[in-house]
Amino acid sequence: MDSAFAIADQDRYRDRAVHLPNSIDLSHHLSTLAKNRQSSALKDLYRYAARPGMIALAGGLPNPETFPYLEMSAEVYTPDALSITPATAANRSPSEAHDAASMVKKPTFLSWLFGKKNTETITIPKPPSSSSPLDINLTTLLQYSSAQGHPALQAFIREFVAKVYQPGFGDWEVLLNIGSTMAWNHVVFMLLEPGDGVLYEEWSYPGAMNTADPLGTHKVSIKVDGEGLIPEDLKKVLEEWDEEKRGFRRPRVLYTSQKHPKHIGARYADVEHHKDSKDTDEEFLKKLPPSYLRFDYQGRVIRMDVSVLREIAERLLRATEASTQAPSGIAQAMVTKLLAETWKYDGYIRWLRGIKATYAMRRDWMQELIMSIIPSSKCDLFESVFHLEFDQTLALSPYIKWVTAFERTVPGMNGAIMDEKRGFKSKKPVVSFVPPTAGMFVWLAVHLESHPQFAQVKQDDGKEGVNKMLYELWTELAENNVLVSPGYFFDAQPGVPHEGTENFGFFRLSFSMASHEQMESAIKTIYKVFVKFFQGK
Amino acid sequence: MDSAFAIADQDRYRDRAVHLPNSIDLSHHLSTLAKNRQSSALKDLYRYAARPGMIALAGGLPNPETFPYLEMSAEVYTPDALSITPATAANRSPSEAHDAASMVKKPTFLSWLFGKKNTETITIPKPPSSSSPLDINLTTLLQYSSAQGHPALQAFIREFVAKVYQPGFGDWEVLLNIGSTMAWNHVVFMLLEPGDGVLYEEWSYPGAMNTADPLGTHKVSIKVDGEGLIPEDLKKVLEEWDEEKRGFRRPRVLYTSQKHPKHIGARYADVEHHKDSKDTDEEFLKKLPPSYLRFDYQGRVIRMDVSVLREIAERLLRATEASTQAPSGIAQAMVTKLLAETWKYDGYIRWLRGIKATYAMRRDWMQELIMSIIPSSKCDLFESVFHLEFDQTLALSPYIKWVTAFERTVPGMNGAIMDEKRGFKSKKPVVSFVPPTAGMFVWLAVHLESHPQFAQVKQDDGKEGVNKMLYELWTELAENNVLVSPGYFFDAQPGVPHEGTENFGFFRLSFSMASHEQMESAIKTIYKVFVKFFQGK
Repeated sequence: MDSAFAIADQDRYRDRAVHLPNSIDLSHHLSTLAKNRQSSALKDLYRYAARPGMIALAGGLPNPETFPYLEMSAEVYTPDALSITPATAANRSPSEAHDAASMVKKPTFLSWLFGKKNTETITIPKPPSSSSPLDINLTTLLQYSSAQGHPALQAFIREFVAKVYQPGFGDWEVLLNIGSTMAWNHVVFMLLEPGDGVLYEEWSYPGAMNTADPLGTHKVSIKVDGEGLIPEDLKKVLEEWDEEKRGFRRPRVLYTSQKHPKHIGARYADVEHHKDSKDTDEEFLKKLPPSYLRFDYQGRVIRMDVSVLREIAERLLRATEASTQAPSGIAQAMVTKLLAETWKYDGYIRWLRGIKATYAMRRDWMQELIMSIIPSSKCDLFESVFHLEFDQTLALSPYIKWVTAFERTVPGMNGAIMDEKRGFKSKKPVVSFVPPTAGMFVWLAVHLESHPQFAQVKQDDGKEGVNKMLYELWTELAENNVLVSPGYFFDAQPGVPHEGTENFGFFRLSFSMASHEQMESAIKTIYKVFVKFFQGK
Repeated sequence: MDSAFAIADQDRYRDRAVHLPNSIDLSHHLSTLAKNRQSSALKDLYRYAARPGMIALAGGLPNPETFPYLEMSAEVYTPDALSITPATAANRSPSEAHDAASMVKKPTFLSWLFGKKNTETITIPKPPSSSSPLDINLTTLLQYSSAQGHPALQAFIREFVAKVYQPGFGDWEVLLNIGSTMAWNHVVFMLLEPGDGVLYEEWSYPGAMNTADPLGTHKVSIKVDGEGLIPEDLKKVLEEWDEEKRGFRRPRVLYTSQKHPKHIGARYADVEHHKDSKDTDEEFLKKLPPSYLRFDYQGRVIRMDVSVLREIAERLLRATEASTQAPSGIAQAMVTKLLAETWKYDGYIRWLRGIKATYAMRRDWMQELIMSIIPSSKCDLFESVFHLEFDQTLALSPYIKWVTAFERTVPGMNGAIMDEKRGFKSKKPVVSFVPPTAGMFVWLAVHLESHPQFAQVKQDDGKEGVNKMLYELWTELAENNVLVSPGYFFDAQPGVPHEGTENFGFFRLSFSMASHEQMESAIKTIYKVFVKFFQGK
């Protein structure tokens, strides 16, 4: 079986932003492996394959009659099926709103009257309905096909990239990949040699590090604040690079993820998604954090989600041909039909707004639960020992307000300081969280230094000891049926203390899946476990 | 987004052939890269994730409400939709049989009467219908999931492997991969270091070589005959390995493909598929060439189609997690529903018999066309200059009968020898083919030495010159609208002549896709172009 013969030249489906500068030559950054990849010896075949009247006996293509699928179809949501106004949930009783836990719009009397449904059916037939390469049919899609992906899906993604990411250079390409982990895997082997350094944010995605580490690469961490990596630290690390001291050359690859720009990060627990719901799609897009691509006029940025690339796209295509080849034809059929032919660009943007509103609603659930339960006025399970308030002392970033729970005065606890104004004795902080503005995670920063044994543990076992304390706290949570991610999973500098947060332990909580009831139960458990932990019990 | 958290322990879905010996320890063959892969730091998470009542806030799982697909369905063939008795086509007129070019059974009066159709509908709902991990639903399948694949599909493949391949050792594993090229890519990086040698058949699959070559591996070719690699040559190469002379250590990896066992290869243009059609499924399976796995009692064989592996499966799983992760959920939904739940093992075997009969029929078309057109009695386009007969002189293997076209006596051509018995003057052979017994390809061996300029070209330019002659012949075919694969695409020893076939040029013709009419036209063109070529025109 060989698919290579099926790859046709797709130049005609590419458009180019001719008014922008082209990327610069970066081919000297390619790894030996990437340089070794041969341009396909089959070029002559491709040239002839497209010729009208050609009888093709060259490829090892299975006969479509042996494809057992005669038609595929799916019931799908319309682009506006998810509400972008969760504020209306406020009109319902809280339990009703939370129990429903759904952003799918309920049919109104009017929509019922006019038979307007929020679902529709898509169907992909087996026989082609035209000879256009844009035609979506199973005969083509279940066959070996171009590693670049279906032309219609490519065109859809190009439109999205051009309008939403707005690359700063002209000669960019889109290459469909099967997922961002595989895309990063390709990039790792394309740009890195064993022993090279890779720049990561000091807290980074473990999946990314697990992909590059086995090649024998070294992690080089860059400091972050609540908005992402600190450019000044990146500059410092690179400028002061001492190859002899470090033992490897200056890193040329940075793995990073988009964080929030200042004007969004500055808000706290706001209701911007409620206001957002009145935006036009254009206004909605303008409010999104810009992609790194927008500031890239040299072609240095590679996005993993849709692999936007410059001319080295050709090297990645070769790597794709020698590994994953085309994404699954069945998946391409379903996705291409839905996005490129049914929803189209405008529908997809509307759908994304519904997703954003969904997670914004769930974020608010968790935030409100943390804010209401940890100060424990609403928690009837445990005595109230915490007070929650904004904490300006944790100035990791002037744009992020950390919210910190302080212990209340507890009889018999020493070291408490009376705060006359607030009417309670504040003590050491125990937990902070940074209100999330996007994504699906809340980070809790546990002030381990407030633990009675912390000083001793740190003195005896250093960072390892600190992690061990966090691991015990994590285990206690898990034993009480709350599973969170310990921060050290994301540690890009294991063994080396994080400047400024060396006395913290981090937990990552996802608000993407749990029901409101589960969240409430989880926060109560966290409260209970934390109290025990900080009492040294 | 991180999927790792979603991977659950699937031990309970594994069965083990406990009566067979276990594999031996082969971990010393792992590459540095493979050894470097860390067992997941998330093991503790998995342990807790399966606990009843656990509130999971650890994973970065998208909320299923944001999956726009509410139901997927497909119209599929029943397992017996393809005929296994193409012989019945003989009852139709030849043109009718060929024009239909279909093995899909026509409805009979009886099947019409009883409403028996050859298609059915499969449907995959979004909500789970049970909490069983074997349940096939979109909520699970469109979510991040185990890199090992859906438990139901895994179980289906395990049954197939156990019954059809019958591994000779007990502790084998099945790991779903996204395609055999990616599976081979994983194996390459798991077992090979830059500079290592890889054993290939002297003619091998270019896709496989393109995957391993860029790592800096060296091709080491093993002689083949019509049945596949010659074991004696493999033994000789390995036994006589001289590391100093070769410049790299003795190869430990052999890439090979299954070829025909002797009792099948010995037949020529037979009608075994007509006889096959009366076999039970069990008899059908017994006639198949055995898998290498059947003779493997140590765990040395890795099959690419379903990745059957021994304990190093764990290393491959780690590599999969850092690259492709799980195969596409949409594809798994469609395939699992069809194979594991609808057709099941018996249905799939019946379907495979239909596929085998399809290609057997098409193989016969091409064979009969070659046999009828190249001797040209039925070809009215050109004067008859070839005679075709069995050629026992080309004894590459005693089990393969090569069929060779000889030039007929042509007025004015010299060197012809009268064969009194046959009533024509035989001359040098011009083309041979080995009747295929499986797969989808016919190989033509072009006797380049019969070309008037061959001796001169070979003397001047050696193997390069020979390839250039073949390239010219290939180009002439393509210019005449017949696209075949030149043999040098498959050359595992470029630059080094192939002992015994150094004066041949090979073309590979696929009979999988072309219609009977196209095949007929192609063979006529090949005939015409070959005549011109050997006349030195």
